[in-house]
Amino acid sequence: MDQYQEKLEQLRASVDEVDQELLALLVKRREITNQLAELKAEQGVALYAPDRESELLNKARKNAIDKALSPELVEDLLKRIIRDNYTGQDNLGYRCVNPKAGKVVIIGGGGQLGAVFVRKFKKSGYQVEVMEQGDWPNAKNILQGVSLVIVSVPIKVTEGVIAELANLPDSCVLADITSIKEKPLAAMLAVHQGPVVGLHPMFGPDVSNLVKQSIVVCHGRGAKDYQWLIEQLAVWGAKTYEVSAKEHDQAMSLIQVMRHFGTICYGNHLRKEGANIEQLVEMSSPIYRLELMMVGRLFAQNPELYRDIIFSNTDNIAMMRRYARRFLEHLDMVELGNKESFVDSFLKTRAFFGEFAQGSLKQSKKMLQKAEELKT
Amino acid sequence: MDQYQEKLEQLRASVDEVDQELLALLVKRREITNQLAELKAEQGVALYAPDRESELLNKARKNAIDKALSPELVEDLLKRIIRDNYTGQDNLGYRCVNPKAGKVVIIGGGGQLGAVFVRKFKKSGYQVEVMEQGDWPNAKNILQGVSLVIVSVPIKVTEGVIAELANLPDSCVLADITSIKEKPLAAMLAVHQGPVVGLHPMFGPDVSNLVKQSIVVCHGRGAKDYQWLIEQLAVWGAKTYEVSAKEHDQAMSLIQVMRHFGTICYGNHLRKEGANIEQLVEMSSPIYRLELMMVGRLFAQNPELYRDIIFSNTDNIAMMRRYARRFLEHLDMVELGNKESFVDSFLKTRAFFGEFAQGSLKQSKKMLQKAEELKT
Repeated sequence: MDQYQEKLEQLRASVDEVDQELLALLVKRREITNQLAELKAEQGVALYAPDRESELLNKARKNAIDKALSPELVEDLLKRIIRDNYTGQDNLGYRCVNPKAGKVVIIGGGGQLGAVFVRKFKKSGYQVEVMEQGDWPNAKNILQGVSLVIVSVPIKVTEGVIAELANLPDSCVLADITSIKEKPLAAMLAVHQGPVVGLHPMFGPDVSNLVKQSIVVCHGRGAKDYQWLIEQLAVWGAKTYEVSAKEHDQAMSLIQVMRHFGTICYGNHLRKEGANIEQLVEMSSPIYRLELMMVGRLFAQNPELYRDIIFSNTDNIAMMRRYARRFLEHLDMVELGNKESFVDSFLKTRAFFGEFAQGSLKQSKKMLQKAEELKT
Repeated sequence: MDQYQEKLEQLRASVDEVDQELLALLVKRREITNQLAELKAEQGVALYAPDRESELLNKARKNAIDKALSPELVEDLLKRIIRDNYTGQDNLGYRCVNPKAGKVVIIGGGGQLGAVFVRKFKKSGYQVEVMEQGDWPNAKNILQGVSLVIVSVPIKVTEGVIAELANLPDSCVLADITSIKEKPLAAMLAVHQGPVVGLHPMFGPDVSNLVKQSIVVCHGRGAKDYQWLIEQLAVWGAKTYEVSAKEHDQAMSLIQVMRHFGTICYGNHLRKEGANIEQLVEMSSPIYRLELMMVGRLFAQNPELYRDIIFSNTDNIAMMRRYARRFLEHLDMVELGNKESFVDSFLKTRAFFGEFAQGSLKQSKKMLQKAEELKT
């Protein structure tokens, strides 16, 4: 072995040693944070403490600068460690905001997203029952004395299921977690005289915990009677966002429906054009690789889910026709070589986005660096 | 202070202590990896060693499992640390593959992307001259005895600039880094008798180093005479991908042009629909937040850049009209309530994506978790 090789292997061995020490330190840190989580669970305090988290990150950034380390590096590492904490600590359980609640019934709780809520309620000490299609003959029994019913069924059957809930106790809270809100909320208000609230969890069933996840809340009736439910979501770490059902549906059509539909058409386009996906991925920049990944992701999922979201609201059709018209108008600019109009439209949209555009440039850089790390 | 508070603060102090130890360990690790980088620089060995990197990550995953830590956590942390290494080590310089090369001239080297290459060549010991618009009267002098000319100017002037390069020494390598390849490559082959190669760096000017970044290589003429240049790119850590100029342009129109154009039209659509961006972001899931971030990012950038990419190839217009047609066909399915055709098309596209879809689902999950970390 020559001198270079020898020195190289020596240094690599030292790196491996440091990495071992790093792992030991992570174990030590986890022991402490587990104690913290237990302490909080005993006390019934929410796990996620935004102020403490930003204090910890600020301290770390400052210390990094003192040690001539990159503050971005240290911040990224700690954020990743903190995320792991939340995942691990999920097993310890959560404070039960309403111990007198009695029974919680989740209709469709066997589904993927429903199961997330079943688990959370159980981890918080509630008595939870799942009601599936085959359980309707037994519904009267299951729903007897229930304090909270959450409807978590596919969009296309949501209203039909809600219509079956005419005989809930007056004090029972009726909620749904469908990704549209106007129609289900109206159906719930029509069928039930007690407290009603529409929820839209803005995450998929693959989340490991709800810390920092958003849940849209559309008030129906009797807010003070379901305040405990909103508090329970906060105990799990979720952030609630209150908006009217109408505004929610409009916003979702612009982002959720447009995005799904556009991505489905783009995937179709790549197929029809005979694109070589492997080659595209191979030669792509992080940004295009990320784009293709999001397209591929969609097609790995359930077509019925997307179909139902897209077909559920006929208002969306007119909105998407307007998108197509704008697309073709811009294409005409290209065909006519009308560069001025194109740039003019671009600048107007930039002005419309305002500070969000610059902020996105910064944030997306971090995302693209992460995409780079995923490369092997 | 009650007992709970006391215990809480004790534990938090212990976390802070561990975090301090963590920083000390990062400093120690950096010292070793800097020595490694110096050793490699002396020896002229490429910094990025894929085999060593995957060995190190595998070892760490294994050790994590032994210690009941999450292997994903440990892998993510180490990848982030390794990325930081590359950034820091960039200052040490690189091996010069062709020390006899003499002069390298970068036309447009004052631009953002050109400047990345100016810096890399300088850090590798080449004599680099930048030629800007005002330098043309002095071109004969600047280009005298040059070994490599890289054209790095806006697309719309690329061919014009290339046409001015009729009097390069026969042995000089002529290259460009434009994001289209057929036309510039043809122009270079027409004007210059010596070695010619087209490059497309698949990254933006904000990269801190080229490790793992892709560069597309389109061969022109005299590959053995510019082999040193390709090797130099590898020394910087870049991955080269060889493809014909025609294939490159077709692939780019499907991903780069379509993506830019679609995003511009989507931004325009959000503006015309009067979307409330702040509200959209606030209530969005990680996936929609990521989507909006990428839209915002585009509008923070130079409209002329996008205009030139989109207007540069009239073949793209027909391709994008086909996209619009497919979009409207799918919209008709929605309008007619034709769910079967919609799902049928979806499943065909899924089959087209093959394994890429499932792989994307896994990889994108990591990206979405990262997006979650960015939330404050």
